[in-house]
Amino acid sequence: MVVTLTIGLDLGGTFVFALSGAMAGVKHRLDLFGVLVLSFAAATSGGIARDVFIGAVPPAAISDWRYIAIPVLAGVIAFYWHPILERLQSSVLLFDAAGLSLFAVSGALKALAFHLGPVSAAILGMATGIGGGIVRDLLIAEIPTVLKSEIYAVAALTGAGVVVVGSLLQFPAHVVCAAGFVSCFALRFAAIRRGWRLPKPVQPSRGESRSGRSHG
Amino acid sequence: MVVTLTIGLDLGGTFVFALSGAMAGVKHRLDLFGVLVLSFAAATSGGIARDVFIGAVPPAAISDWRYIAIPVLAGVIAFYWHPILERLQSSVLLFDAAGLSLFAVSGALKALAFHLGPVSAAILGMATGIGGGIVRDLLIAEIPTVLKSEIYAVAALTGAGVVVVGSLLQFPAHVVCAAGFVSCFALRFAAIRRGWRLPKPVQPSRGESRSGRSHG
Amino acid sequence: MVVTLTIGLDLGGTFVFALSGAMAGVKHRLDLFGVLVLSFAAATSGGIARDVFIGAVPPAAISDWRYIAIPVLAGVIAFYWHPILERLQSSVLLFDAAGLSLFAVSGALKALAFHLGPVSAAILGMATGIGGGIVRDLLIAEIPTVLKSEIYAVAALTGAGVVVVGSLLQFPAHVVCAAGFVSCFALRFAAIRRGWRLPKPVQPSRGESRSGRSHG
Repeated sequence: MVVTLTIGLDLGGTFVFALSGAMAGVKHRLDLFGVLVLSFAAATSGGIARDVFIGAVPPAAISDWRYIAIPVLAGVIAFYWHPILERLQSSVLLFDAAGLSLFAVSGALKALAFHLGPVSAAILGMATGIGGGIVRDLLIAEIPTVLKSEIYAVAALTGAGVVVVGSLLQFPAHVVCAAGFVSCFALRFAAIRRGWRLPKPVQPSRGESRSGRSHG
Repeated sequence: MVVTLTIGLDLGGTFVFALSGAMAGVKHRLDLFGVLVLSFAAATSGGIARDVFIGAVPPAAISDWRYIAIPVLAGVIAFYWHPILERLQSSVLLFDAAGLSLFAVSGALKALAFHLGPVSAAILGMATGIGGGIVRDLLIAEIPTVLKSEIYAVAALTGAGVVVVGSLLQFPAHVVCAAGFVSCFALRFAAIRRGWRLPKPVQPSRGESRSGRSHG
Repeated sequence: MVVTLTIGLDLGGTFVFALSGAMAGVKHRLDLFGVLVLSFAAATSGGIARDVFIGAVPPAAISDWRYIAIPVLAGVIAFYWHPILERLQSSVLLFDAAGLSLFAVSGALKALAFHLGPVSAAILGMATGIGGGIVRDLLIAEIPTVLKSEIYAVAALTGAGVVVVGSLLQFPAHVVCAAGFVSCFALRFAAIRRGWRLPKPVQPSRGESRSGRSHG
């Protein structure tokens, strides 16, 4: 049952992140296939990295047709109906938060199922959650938003950590998943709504930056 | 015999993509070793990803000296004779198309040999074909051309798909490979010559882009 | 004993590269967690790639808590005491050279322990050394310094090569490691001090560059 739960959470996250990747492609005026490649990369990179790291090869995103069909579907939707999606911009932020939470939970669950230790499982859950967005931003040559934005990776780590602790305490799997999802989503949602941010370095290091792009 | 065929196709693609990576390095005025690193990255990234995903570790590009010698050779050629290669610019485009076709075919063949399903094998063939160019462009901080350019990934997917279908129908391996190569190469060649493009999003999303670099 | 030696060298390199990643994050004004993500990425990417390539999954950087604790420690240090580190800028360059040497040696040792051939082991040692810096620079959207700077990858390859040759000749492990470390560090140090560089392409390819960013 845990397997079914993991896959269900994973597929949900796949769809949401595929939409985010496809929208990024539309914004950069890519052609249809470029949009599909970004959709696939955003949706599957986190899970592929997780599966490679735990030795679950070939990764589910390659061997299971649903992980291929869903990004194609999301890419086509974004390509033809992006004006509607853009009006839902704040909804997209919520979808993204949902995807982050789904992947953080499914990543931690799968790592535990492959007998990784608790700290490793929490780290892998976080990596599964943030990996897709990092690759998406790299491909469009931007500094990954996870590095710059409000509480994001922290939320994923929290959700994954809740799953790991709950599993160690042998709570039922669906309770653990719900708690992990809610804790990640609530933290991310609050960060968006209230503009919560983590502290920045005390003093800027003037004239040190080798690139002016971070100020552009 | 399929193994020999796969390796032969792979080595041919390695040389061509190594040249493309080395030329990118020369254009960015890298030193000799920088050119060699780009040459190696462009030539082997697609195959390394494929081998990691199917569990064929260490990847052939690491364990087989020919995959190391060929990029070094191509890098040195590009470094010292790049003016000649630049005059052959359109030939380079053709070489690149040949490399794409060779890798798409060899990638799909190897995935099938490792018992992946047909859809997975076609996707992995495409990834093998386009992976090197993506890493090459990431390293020089550009949006990968595969995301922006004319029919490219589509051609790789077509070639890999022909190989998969032909293998399922149990046609002889060399016939299948020839058909896969020709279909990919012809599609890519026609796209270059006739300026074929895939459709772009109907309506630009004005003022949405967070980065001005895609218009630079 | 070789295992202990490998891990000790690896942990030392991890700390030094974590500092370099964290300092890059501070320079780009990332928040605390962004700094930690860059610290972790710079410290562990080379080793993760090596472990995935040789089939040692889950990678030590995921499964061993010390590889997680050290980047966190280095990230916090850089975040709160970066003005001091900046005054030590030239020391940081030396630390970086030390990290490169430590990783090149540990990478080659581990590859040999997993029965890779000599050329593969030297290449993997180099990749372990330069991998972290490449990912660090990709994440902040810059052309990796390894591609542009003075003798860097060459030094790593030299150090790894010394380890491989010494091991083949069955010299004692600690002698081999010391020789590998010293050869890499000395080469890198001399390159920094004396401004040694590798040759650049004879003639610039004017007007060919598609991007003005390498001249910015």
